[in-house]
Amino acid sequence: MSGGKIVCIGLGPGDPDLMSLRAHRHLTNAATVAYFRKPGRMGQARRIVEGLLPGDVAELAMEYPVTTEIPVSDPAYNAMLRGFYDEWAGRLVNAAQHGDVVVLCEGDPFFFGSFMHLHARLPAELVEVVPGIPGMAGCWTATGRPITWGDDILTILPATLPEAELARRIADTDALVVMKIGRNLPRLRRAIAAAGRLAEAWLVEHGTMPAERVCPLAEVQGPVPYFSIVLIHGQGRRP
Amino acid sequence: MSGGKIVCIGLGPGDPDLMSLRAHRHLTNAATVAYFRKPGRMGQARRIVEGLLPGDVAELAMEYPVTTEIPVSDPAYNAMLRGFYDEWAGRLVNAAQHGDVVVLCEGDPFFFGSFMHLHARLPAELVEVVPGIPGMAGCWTATGRPITWGDDILTILPATLPEAELARRIADTDALVVMKIGRNLPRLRRAIAAAGRLAEAWLVEHGTMPAERVCPLAEVQGPVPYFSIVLIHGQGRRP
Repeated sequence: MSGGKIVCIGLGPGDPDLMSLRAHRHLTNAATVAYFRKPGRMGQARRIVEGLLPGDVAELAMEYPVTTEIPVSDPAYNAMLRGFYDEWAGRLVNAAQHGDVVVLCEGDPFFFGSFMHLHARLPAELVEVVPGIPGMAGCWTATGRPITWGDDILTILPATLPEAELARRIADTDALVVMKIGRNLPRLRRAIAAAGRLAEAWLVEHGTMPAERVCPLAEVQGPVPYFSIVLIHGQGRRP
Repeated sequence: MSGGKIVCIGLGPGDPDLMSLRAHRHLTNAATVAYFRKPGRMGQARRIVEGLLPGDVAELAMEYPVTTEIPVSDPAYNAMLRGFYDEWAGRLVNAAQHGDVVVLCEGDPFFFGSFMHLHARLPAELVEVVPGIPGMAGCWTATGRPITWGDDILTILPATLPEAELARRIADTDALVVMKIGRNLPRLRRAIAAAGRLAEAWLVEHGTMPAERVCPLAEVQGPVPYFSIVLIHGQGRRP
């Protein structure tokens, strides 16, 4: 055998029924799968495929050496992650010498996916990427309303931005998606209020999954998951 | 029989292998499918599912009364479209009395999809929407590089905006996706150049389809399809 590929498959927003036919075929034929997870956790990508893997599949759990609790400004954060991705890129290349390695990725791999950090370290000719439905598409579908109409502008922001920067951009767009919510929610909510748009904003948790919850942002209380999405629907031209 | 639903399925960016398991199941079990098309054309949604429909399926071709050549500022444009969507919303409700009607939609139905104009006219309890991979995700995957990293901001613009507005927003974002290209390309290219970002921009035509073409925007010559995508990759934080 002359070796396989490293195939990263986008699994979509969470409901396994929303992965693509191609992703499903790679998954159900896989000899080896790899996925990121935090130490001691199952990992969201692995959870999505529970019950779908062949019985004799080999699993490579790529356990992050750090958690989101370490500030990204700490130089140790980057150094640790660099070593982690370097090591796993090498291990996946080795594993691919014996056949395809299927890397699991929530959402779409090239849209804020962790796989891109491996991808940047892998020989391009060894890699294949299967796109997936981004988590945000699962979330706006969960609200039962279109995110964009006609000539709407859609701005996608990380909630990690400074409050004034968030407010400026939220005031200057038609439709809005904000990602990476979690502990950034209070600052984000203040920014949305400052932009005069709190009444239009929705929070979606666990979009397309059993625990899915859609709630007007103004009514949200308590902590929310990091992977929640805040959105504002566009109001563009419609006949 | 107490009647069915109107199920709009997102077909993804163009390659039929990229539709979701759920969309595929609705499609291959469909008794009735409906899809938009221009008069005399097969229609892109219908083309994607060629060869996948049951042999005895009933097809409802929803033919647009106008083409994109009529300016949207013409009041006749809106009036004609209004009548068209009103009529088809009624016809789909009637058809659903005999079982599910599957409406085909390229990309993701709630992201600039035409279905939303029917959706706004249909009883909510009668409608189900299956998200799909947006065309832009197929296009950025075709470039072989991630669209966003770390804390990148992604701005999604219609190329129909005024040139100065395009330039201002293109200068003020990390990553960029521009839709609705076609005849708007010369203005868009001037705007990207004015923002100082022409060397970073790519044009993707027919993403994920046999005619797929990925080209630096600066090298593009001649007319391009309306559904092409122009994009600029983010350069965000990476370990």
